[in-house]
Amino acid sequence: MGTYIAIDVGGTRIRAAVYPEKGMEPLRMERIPTQGEGTPVERIIEVVSRIWPDEPVLGIAAAAPGPLDPHAGIIFEAPNIPGWTNLPLQKILEDHFHVPTMLGNDANMAAIGEWHYGAGVGHHNLVYLTISTGIGGGVIMDDHLLVGEHGLATELGHVTIDPNGPMCSCGHRGHLEALSSGTAIAKYAAEQLALGRTSLMTNPAPTALEIANAARAGDLLALEAFNRAGEYLAIALLNYAHIFNPTIFILGGGVSSSGPLLFEPLRRNMARDVYSPKYLEDLVITTALLGDDAGLLGTLEMARLMNLERQLIPDD
Amino acid sequence: MGTYIAIDVGGTRIRAAVYPEKGMEPLRMERIPTQGEGTPVERIIEVVSRIWPDEPVLGIAAAAPGPLDPHAGIIFEAPNIPGWTNLPLQKILEDHFHVPTMLGNDANMAAIGEWHYGAGVGHHNLVYLTISTGIGGGVIMDDHLLVGEHGLATELGHVTIDPNGPMCSCGHRGHLEALSSGTAIAKYAAEQLALGRTSLMTNPAPTALEIANAARAGDLLALEAFNRAGEYLAIALLNYAHIFNPTIFILGGGVSSSGPLLFEPLRRNMARDVYSPKYLEDLVITTALLGDDAGLLGTLEMARLMNLERQLIPDD
Repeated sequence: MGTYIAIDVGGTRIRAAVYPEKGMEPLRMERIPTQGEGTPVERIIEVVSRIWPDEPVLGIAAAAPGPLDPHAGIIFEAPNIPGWTNLPLQKILEDHFHVPTMLGNDANMAAIGEWHYGAGVGHHNLVYLTISTGIGGGVIMDDHLLVGEHGLATELGHVTIDPNGPMCSCGHRGHLEALSSGTAIAKYAAEQLALGRTSLMTNPAPTALEIANAARAGDLLALEAFNRAGEYLAIALLNYAHIFNPTIFILGGGVSSSGPLLFEPLRRNMARDVYSPKYLEDLVITTALLGDDAGLLGTLEMARLMNLERQLIPDD
Repeated sequence: MGTYIAIDVGGTRIRAAVYPEKGMEPLRMERIPTQGEGTPVERIIEVVSRIWPDEPVLGIAAAAPGPLDPHAGIIFEAPNIPGWTNLPLQKILEDHFHVPTMLGNDANMAAIGEWHYGAGVGHHNLVYLTISTGIGGGVIMDDHLLVGEHGLATELGHVTIDPNGPMCSCGHRGHLEALSSGTAIAKYAAEQLALGRTSLMTNPAPTALEIANAARAGDLLALEAFNRAGEYLAIALLNYAHIFNPTIFILGGGVSSSGPLLFEPLRRNMARDVYSPKYLEDLVITTALLGDDAGLLGTLEMARLMNLERQLIPDD
C-alpha cells in the first residue's frame, strides 16, 4: 500500500500527516510550532521525517500561507514567517525526500478540502472564503481550481468594496478584509467605543469573539458592528455570484461561526441587491464543515491528483 | 469540405456567416436588422437559410445578448429584444436545420474571438471587457471559458465598485457599468453641465464621442469625465487582477477606443493601488483587435470545438 504526506504550514504551527492511498483518516499526524530550534524549513523536514511511514510515499503536498506559485513551487512571501521570500520549498522538499512534491496556497487547499470532503461535496462551481483575522479565498469552476497565471488568483479578501472605506492591512483602501474580517469588526467597535458610544462592552478594544458575545446579549453597538460586516460581505458575495455564478458559498474561519449575527444581514442584503434572482435560485450559503482540517485534506487531495496525473502522463 | 455557420444576434442587427473547416475568412456573410417582417427568430432562420452552403454544415453556433444558459441552450432574457424570455433558441435552430447547434453569451464569444484570433493569441489567462453603452465581459482561465453553473458568470459590468455610487441601468447602485460605460461618462458630463460648469461643449447632453473630442481639445470637464471613468475602471481591473491573475486585459467597445483619455488614468491608478506588484509584472492591458468581428469569430470557434468534442465523445 502506498501513502501520501500532507503538510499544513501556518504562521504559528506546522502540521504533517500520513494518509493511506484512499480515505480521509490519517495513519499518523504530528504538529510543532513553526518557530523554535532551527529554521521553519528545517522544522518542516523534521516533522515530516518524524512521521515518515514504512510504506512507500507516493507524493507530498504542502499548503502554505501567502502568495505562492504552485507551477514553479515557490513561495513568494509568507507574511507571518520572516525570511520566506521567493523560497523554492517544493524543490527543497523533493531534494530531501526524493518524492514528487507540490505546493498550494492554504486558502485554495481549504477550498479543495471542503469541496471533496466537506460542505461542497457534489458541487461543480464553488466559492470558499475564510473569514478570521484576515480574509482569503479559493474558487472551483467546472471542477477545476482557479489559480491564475502565477498562482496569485482568488485573493478574495483584497478586492475593493468601498473606495472610501477604511485602510486594509495591505495598505490599500476599502478592501473586503478591511470591512468584514474579525480585525475589521474589532477595529470598528473600538473606534465607536472611543467616540463615547454606550455599550455593555467594558474592554475598550474588544475582540471579535467578545463583540459576538455582547451582540448575543443584545448590545446595540456590537450588533451594529456585525451588521456592518455582514452588509459589506453581501456586496462582496454578490460580486462573486455575478463573476462566478457558483451554486455554493462556503464560509470558513472564526468569524463565520458567529451564525445569524453575520448571516442574517448577509442574506438580507444579497436578496435586495442581486442583479437577477436567477443567481440566488439554487445558491447555498453555508459554513465550512471541516474546520482546521480543510487545508490538510485539500492538500492530501492535491497529492493524490498529482500522483494520478503522473501515472496518466509519465515523465519522459 | 465541411463548413460552420456563425450567427451574431444583436439588439439592432443579425449577422450570419459561413466559414470553411479551417481559417477565419468567411465564405459568405449576410446581415439584416433584428426587427422587421416576422419575429426575430424567423429572421434568424431566414438569414441562415439565405447563406446556407452546398457543402455539409458541421455545426451552428449563435452569440446572443443577455443572460443565457449555454448548457441548456436557453436565452433567459434579451433586454433589447422584446419577447425573448426563456427562449430555447438552440432547440429551435436544431429542429429547423437538423445540425448540432450551440448558444453563447455575446461578450463571452467576443472574449473567445479575441483569444483565438485577436489581441489575446498565446495567452492562457485572459480578461475581456467590452465598454460601450453598457459593460460586459468574458474570462478565459487555463484555456477554459468561465461560464458558471447556469452560464451567468462574468457579468463584469454588474459588480459594485462604489456602494455610494450612481444608479446602474439594472436598478442597483454603484456598478462598474454606472461608473465607466459610455452612458456613465455622458451622464456625468450632462450633470456637471446642468450644474453650470464651464465647458467647450455646447450640447447640454453630449455623447461619449463628443466628450472624447472635447477632451482632446483640452476641455477640462470632458477630461475630468474620462479621468473619473478611468479611475473607477482601474478599481475594477485591479479587483479582476486579484481575482483572476490574468496576463492580459483586452478592452473592446467604443469607449475603449478613446485611447489615453481612458488608459492613462487607468494605468496610473492600477500601478498605485495594486495589492502586490507581481500582478502587474507581465500584465498586458490593450485594446481589442477584431472590432465587430470578435463575436462572430468566437462563435465560429465554439462551433468548431463543439464538433471536435462530438468526434471525441460520440453520443450513445
